[in-house]
Amino acid sequence: MLYLIGLGLSHETDITVRGLEVVKQCKRVYLEAYTSILMTADKESLEKFYGREVILADRELVESGSDTILENAQEDDVAFLVVGDPFGATTHTDLVLRARELGIKYTTIHNASVMNAVGACGLQLYNFGQTVSLVFFTDNWKPDSFYDKVLENRKLGLHTLLLLDIKVKEQSIENMARGRLIYEPPRYMSIETAASQLLEIEEIRGENCYGPNTPCIAVSRLGSPAQTIRSGVLEEMVEYESGAPLHSLVILGNQVHDLETDFIVEFAENKDRLRAAIKEDAQNFAKPVPPPPEDDFSD
Amino acid sequence: MLYLIGLGLSHETDITVRGLEVVKQCKRVYLEAYTSILMTADKESLEKFYGREVILADRELVESGSDTILENAQEDDVAFLVVGDPFGATTHTDLVLRARELGIKYTTIHNASVMNAVGACGLQLYNFGQTVSLVFFTDNWKPDSFYDKVLENRKLGLHTLLLLDIKVKEQSIENMARGRLIYEPPRYMSIETAASQLLEIEEIRGENCYGPNTPCIAVSRLGSPAQTIRSGVLEEMVEYESGAPLHSLVILGNQVHDLETDFIVEFAENKDRLRAAIKEDAQNFAKPVPPPPEDDFSD
Repeated sequence: MLYLIGLGLSHETDITVRGLEVVKQCKRVYLEAYTSILMTADKESLEKFYGREVILADRELVESGSDTILENAQEDDVAFLVVGDPFGATTHTDLVLRARELGIKYTTIHNASVMNAVGACGLQLYNFGQTVSLVFFTDNWKPDSFYDKVLENRKLGLHTLLLLDIKVKEQSIENMARGRLIYEPPRYMSIETAASQLLEIEEIRGENCYGPNTPCIAVSRLGSPAQTIRSGVLEEMVEYESGAPLHSLVILGNQVHDLETDFIVEFAENKDRLRAAIKEDAQNFAKPVPPPPEDDFSD
Repeated sequence: MLYLIGLGLSHETDITVRGLEVVKQCKRVYLEAYTSILMTADKESLEKFYGREVILADRELVESGSDTILENAQEDDVAFLVVGDPFGATTHTDLVLRARELGIKYTTIHNASVMNAVGACGLQLYNFGQTVSLVFFTDNWKPDSFYDKVLENRKLGLHTLLLLDIKVKEQSIENMARGRLIYEPPRYMSIETAASQLLEIEEIRGENCYGPNTPCIAVSRLGSPAQTIRSGVLEEMVEYESGAPLHSLVILGNQVHDLETDFIVEFAENKDRLRAAIKEDAQNFAKPVPPPPEDDFSD
């Protein structure tokens, strides 16, 4: 049996009781270590907490060596640990498809991921549209497909969760070209970088998807003891010192419920400015006023 | 301190290790018992597992009596347990706002909810639009606001998660009128009912949002040992025997990634029909073909 086990967001102890029971009795335990990180735990602290060996699974092992992970899992119990929930990233779908081909049964033990825990910022999950990813720009590569998706959400009045780029175990172009397995230090996108990149693309595209005064929420170290939530307008986020990773950014939809507003302004440095910006933003993407119903004058 | 603790989806042991540690040391522990249920646990089994008393919090207590829950929580530790994750439903935002007014600090211990665990059906969470709720129709009340939201998602090619109605501790209109605190037996919407209601509203609205041949996925008892995932077209779901609650239904967007298709057809009774329906659906809401880029003929 293959067990896909979510580790949650931060602590060793964010694993579920059921997940921990399974980890203790599996023959092999792999930790997926390249799409995210646990903020207050690492391989060593997990091994200590579980009382057993944990094998780091990097991108090569998961994408090219999945048969190593799945070896004899028709008979043996194998655990594959994923930060957050196991069904956040495409890669793990691949692993399950391969397990199916090999006739291996699988069970998922779910956990919190940023996709649902972001509700802690005070916006209703019902009011979010599609989630988008924002990658690090380089001098000559500034992918802006996120912009269309944010625009689609904004036109519907919906909030957008932006997942910010994580670069773990990446090679430089030079090292890759020379076939040297030397990796760059890990990089995690900050709120400041995300906000700058967003404004840079609005400058280029100019479709008024958002602007310096658009309300947003910086969610930093979600679920960890050092969690910080800061609301404000986008240009304030360019100057914000968001600190240690991980970070996510929410761009608000222009239809904000009063209860949402009451909740989120508490996280603002400049509460009056945010309230005003929410009010002002409500005028954007205004839907045409529908004609009155035919019986509107009947009484 | 107020601790908002997610219980996950099904088992007593779906609580996180950290959540369990907190539950054991709190002065009072409340269990929110009206917006969802744990599928394989109840108050008694939780009390046994925690080794302590648990107080059931019904709608009256949470919405009108939140000061009872929060009594002396400036000094004492109080836990509020919620099935899934604490930030799925509006009500708990209210509780946090009230705690803030009373100067009570709060901490959230997150867990899986259907909003992220639905990824287990094989569709990418990135490809979901806004989540909608479907309530039980009565003879003269058939609220259809969900239809507009599904249509917004479908026009963008995005999947829609439909959360199906749960009626726990509801009074009949007669008993309510007479002020009698007699409650109806709990009701949980089945896949069959959801599919019938969906087709009924398409019949009335007629905007071709979806139809009998629209691909969808029934997700039943997600995260429990009796979990069942069944894919197919909407009219097949009308006849499907979905069994014990809880259920959710996903209406696919018309842009389905090949990897998603490969994953989900495994859950179909009629695989060929589903593959054909996905292909056919891709023609709906077709975006106009963009003009070729200007340098398209340059070589």
